[in-house]
Amino acid sequence: MRPVRSRSSPRPGSVAGTNETRTQPADITSAAIASFEGCSDARLQELAQTLVRHLHAFAVEVGLTQEEWEAGVGILTATGQITDERRQEFILWSDSLGLSMLVDALANPLPAGATESTVLGPFYVPGAPERAYGENMAEEPAGTPAWVYGRVLDLDGHGIAAAELDVWQNGDDRLYAVQSPEAPEEHLRGRFRTRGDGSYAFLAVRPVPYTIPDDGPVGAMLDATGRHPWRPAHIHMIVRAPGHRTVVTHIFDAASGYLDSDAVFAVKPSLPREFVPRAADDPERPDGVEGAWCSVENDLVLAPGEDARLVVDPGRTA
Amino acid sequence: MRPVRSRSSPRPGSVAGTNETRTQPADITSAAIASFEGCSDARLQELAQTLVRHLHAFAVEVGLTQEEWEAGVGILTATGQITDERRQEFILWSDSLGLSMLVDALANPLPAGATESTVLGPFYVPGAPERAYGENMAEEPAGTPAWVYGRVLDLDGHGIAAAELDVWQNGDDRLYAVQSPEAPEEHLRGRFRTRGDGSYAFLAVRPVPYTIPDDGPVGAMLDATGRHPWRPAHIHMIVRAPGHRTVVTHIFDAASGYLDSDAVFAVKPSLPREFVPRAADDPERPDGVEGAWCSVENDLVLAPGEDARLVVDPGRTA
Repeated sequence: MRPVRSRSSPRPGSVAGTNETRTQPADITSAAIASFEGCSDARLQELAQTLVRHLHAFAVEVGLTQEEWEAGVGILTATGQITDERRQEFILWSDSLGLSMLVDALANPLPAGATESTVLGPFYVPGAPERAYGENMAEEPAGTPAWVYGRVLDLDGHGIAAAELDVWQNGDDRLYAVQSPEAPEEHLRGRFRTRGDGSYAFLAVRPVPYTIPDDGPVGAMLDATGRHPWRPAHIHMIVRAPGHRTVVTHIFDAASGYLDSDAVFAVKPSLPREFVPRAADDPERPDGVEGAWCSVENDLVLAPGEDARLVVDPGRTA
Repeated sequence: MRPVRSRSSPRPGSVAGTNETRTQPADITSAAIASFEGCSDARLQELAQTLVRHLHAFAVEVGLTQEEWEAGVGILTATGQITDERRQEFILWSDSLGLSMLVDALANPLPAGATESTVLGPFYVPGAPERAYGENMAEEPAGTPAWVYGRVLDLDGHGIAAAELDVWQNGDDRLYAVQSPEAPEEHLRGRFRTRGDGSYAFLAVRPVPYTIPDDGPVGAMLDATGRHPWRPAHIHMIVRAPGHRTVVTHIFDAASGYLDSDAVFAVKPSLPREFVPRAADDPERPDGVEGAWCSVENDLVLAPGEDARLVVDPGRTA
């Protein structure tokens, strides 16, 4: 480790500062980086030194004032205070600053042709009920019925049999089942398997836009900077099949608002799909559906390989 | 605001990903930066956009993995949990990564010849007792008596009368009075005034090195990276005089360990001073001192101006 500056010797008893080499901001940055020179874990050393370099470069570039530094400490403290078993405001910061999507993009580069990934979000709960082909996920009325169908394919366009689609979505009250004390636990959740030709289908509802939690520090940031807290309408799914890379993705409603300004930057141009309005007397109307409904076709293409992604993020679901 | 990528249109119903322009990490960074384009506060916009740029550059440069991102979220969450009215682990992160010293250097550039500033630290409590010239700050035995003396000067070398020295330090049990339930509240704290010629003197004790709180996330970082939690021995002071810039500084013991590896990077080469051992029969022995003692001379030079520094950091003392 290094002292903050070593070019001049202290002169005990002298008038402080006179004829001294004074410590400059760059000296402090160098000392902080050098403090990790003894780290025996090369990766940890790289992370620590690079973090310090960028943290300091940010402060120098903006000329961070002490009042702004204090405000930052206050924001982090408030973020810690609002975070508990049911609310993870640090992840919300990561989401709302685009870091979560960036880490996903860095960690999960998928080959051309494979369905693109997007954020897991905070509302995934493992262990959704296994449901049959075409079964209705809505345990109670939750909006316009939506027949979701398509195929799970490999990169060569061949259907993948017995792939699993782990699906969850919100209803027209904007809430996921996990957010709603009154909703049945299995409401708007389900795990579906593809048939022998890779085809799947299930009955969902047309999703609606909703806001990320905006009553905490992240909400205050969005408000202060002129951003909104809305996410465009979407259905979540995780698609898994042996010998293939798991993909965590969304079907976005191509007609939704906020597609161009998702609060968590999760929209990729390949992901929106058209929800096609269908009449009550449409001959393809699924069993049990009354009144107007819609349908959406969505093929999913998996890359070969093993699952490189941690599907369940303990920080989100703890 | 901008979508994550706008060069290709979504193709509802097509096989996702086929012939699509795929979203790259740089697209996500651009979208996150662009999301602040509508911010009406130009300074806030600059802070947010620069923060996002450096945060993303860090993640890209190290190739941050999801496991590492999760570990980071876990560390921030633990930091929030350990922080309360008496402990500020976020400030400890700032201190231990050199950010606190950097912000001080950016915010308080002082002219050549002026005494250099350093960290306030977490143990400052406003309202120390006013004490007379030469008075003893130790309300009970706390180590080797140390006679601290010198002058407060302007940049031209003229003494400043009635300048205030607000002093606090730890005793040989390593603790500040605010940390010790048994210690008298006024122990090892005091406000002293210079005489007409700018001279001051007080009786302190020779300080000893101590560790920053190392039983939390910052301590775990120090341990994992091969750093130690020690600070070299020092006495804190804030020096104030009308018409001059307030300076927050330390007298470091030039013979202390850890001068070249202070855990919070607060040592500047101009700040250490020699604590000169003095014998029990030294004719300059201060009244009331028995046995061995020491003395340290330290002149303090104030720059002209108004106080540009918030002396009391609410985040630390709340």
